[in-house]
Amino acid sequence: MSARTCSSRGVLDYTHVENLSAADVERLRAVYEPLTRSVRDLVDATIRTEVDAGVVAAATAEIESATARLREKQRALSFGIQLGADGDAMPWGNAVIGVRNPTAPPLVVRRMTDDSGERVTSDFYLGAAFEGPPGHVHGGVSAMILDHVLGDAASTPGKHRLTGTITVSYRRLTPLGRVHAEARVSHSEGVKTYVVGHLADGRGVTVEAEGVFIEPRWARG
Amino acid sequence: MSARTCSSRGVLDYTHVENLSAADVERLRAVYEPLTRSVRDLVDATIRTEVDAGVVAAATAEIESATARLREKQRALSFGIQLGADGDAMPWGNAVIGVRNPTAPPLVVRRMTDDSGERVTSDFYLGAAFEGPPGHVHGGVSAMILDHVLGDAASTPGKHRLTGTITVSYRRLTPLGRVHAEARVSHSEGVKTYVVGHLADGRGVTVEAEGVFIEPRWARG
Repeated sequence: MSARTCSSRGVLDYTHVENLSAADVERLRAVYEPLTRSVRDLVDATIRTEVDAGVVAAATAEIESATARLREKQRALSFGIQLGADGDAMPWGNAVIGVRNPTAPPLVVRRMTDDSGERVTSDFYLGAAFEGPPGHVHGGVSAMILDHVLGDAASTPGKHRLTGTITVSYRRLTPLGRVHAEARVSHSEGVKTYVVGHLADGRGVTVEAEGVFIEPRWARG
Repeated sequence: MSARTCSSRGVLDYTHVENLSAADVERLRAVYEPLTRSVRDLVDATIRTEVDAGVVAAATAEIESATARLREKQRALSFGIQLGADGDAMPWGNAVIGVRNPTAPPLVVRRMTDDSGERVTSDFYLGAAFEGPPGHVHGGVSAMILDHVLGDAASTPGKHRLTGTITVSYRRLTPLGRVHAEARVSHSEGVKTYVVGHLADGRGVTVEAEGVFIEPRWARG
């Protein structure tokens, strides 16, 4: 069964998995998350390896065998956003937070409230796969992560807001390693939600961002 | 031997590989590029697979074996930007264009001149690994790619410019699949180079961007 919602340009397909309890979701996660972690580790090794052609050939044969096994049964094209029986979204293929996407860091975004109001934060590690300037995070990767984190700050349960416009300003290079991200809503006007946020390393802010996020037309009441 | 250049915050390390001819570079590429392609295929299979726990376990064992082989000899931390004997950069670990980075699409950026002046363009495929909204490119991935392509448009041989500020505006969702990117310099003022660009699918522009790119202080004459 599919729950379809019309977007401004067509249809967004949220696949509804029937009879999937919270326990089922946890079981699926326990099966696929360790696989994804092992592929993330392989990605890092692939970038950094200096072994010779013979060893590369042996490794490649094993990788192709693993891929063939996994493709014995697979969904078409992409993961989509599957929904469990309780309606909880499982964005496991997402490029930034997907626990089944080996190219995602992946971020775990927390929502918290303190004296300065509500904000979202995330602490994560960016290794060799995210490099631009030598030893530093690719500026585009910083923009990608800020887009996601600001979008999470703009959204509320059951109301997902998409990026209208985002401006990213680079203060200095972000070294590869542990990175912190956070974002909060600055104000709202009608269907527009304005959000600010930043990335930081242990020494302070490296990249700042501000964005306007909108509730898609097809989702408005 | 390392060629070190001072950045505003420290040192960017471009590893200079001695005695590496153009033929050596091609030989290295022929060894490692097919490995990287096989890992990209595995990443896609990992996201889309629906095989059961037993098959996942067998695939994971092969993946871990391949990773161990590749780690028998590896460079520390990240790839960096290696330089051949002729000084040509080998940004093979780059998150957007790296031919040795399985998380890169990877983009191949071409520079061309036509009636409207000089511009850079790239045509590439974005599959399951780049998903945000179901069936569509993650907005952050669009920002990442535009940051890179606009940066390439801003740069000239021997003079690499980094992003100061970039603004990304989303016109509509970009479907997963074949995507086109292009960018060109609009004007320059002192050390600032202003660039505009966009992403498009077969139906037209989906995301627009404009940015200010700067020559790092340490690279100015």
